[in-house]
Amino acid sequence: MGFREHLQEICNGVEGAVACSLMGVDGIEVDTHVVGGGDLDVKSLLVEYTGVLRSARDAAEAHQAGGVSEFSVATDKLTAVARLVSPEYFMVVALRPEGNQGKARFLLRVTAPKVKSEL
Amino acid sequence: MGFREHLQEICNGVEGAVACSLMGVDGIEVDTHVVGGGDLDVKSLLVEYTGVLRSARDAAEAHQAGGVSEFSVATDKLTAVARLVSPEYFMVVALRPEGNQGKARFLLRVTAPKVKSEL
Repeated sequence: MGFREHLQEICNGVEGAVACSLMGVDGIEVDTHVVGGGDLDVKSLLVEYTGVLRSARDAAEAHQAGGVSEFSVATDKLTAVARLVSPEYFMVVALRPEGNQGKARFLLRVTAPKVKSEL
Repeated sequence: MGFREHLQEICNGVEGAVACSLMGVDGIEVDTHVVGGGDLDVKSLLVEYTGVLRSARDAAEAHQAGGVSEFSVATDKLTAVARLVSPEYFMVVALRPEGNQGKARFLLRVTAPKVKSEL
């Protein structure tokens, strides 16, 4: 199963999902499956959140809290749930605010090792 | 009930909680209840995460995703779950990785309006 299939499978399994991406921590997208984001430019927002993830990683490292494993930001229009797949890559699900964030976290957790083995 | 009692109540209700703070988005702490953070300087880490929250807010605003309502960062040693109480203040629970993050989110959601009414 390729990256794209894993991303599709996550979108299919999460109520309210609008997109799922595999991205580099440097903000460069590897692959994205988009279900539909309405009037939002979801891809650009996720790239922007990569910078936020890097800040969180730097803050945690500076305080000996260890590596960042998971990260989420919820706004009025979109929730993003991200999980590190390796130190260089992460997967992120974007979902509508009423979507199932717990299911997104669960599917990211079980899918991350499968994606990692393909990197 | 004052701020401190609300913060204590959240810590008591969340398995694995080590601290709960009410903070300004500018990084200035209003009040904190600390249960115990082991060898981590939890307070300083939470102040640092305020900068991360501001970056997330700027990113979301730049992409018309609306205001940030919730935010979380999980590291190997500590999970932080934050919820905006008003545009200027947020509450944040720090918990051990095995702690109940769902309960933290729930208690922040129900407590935030009570704290807001006291600001």
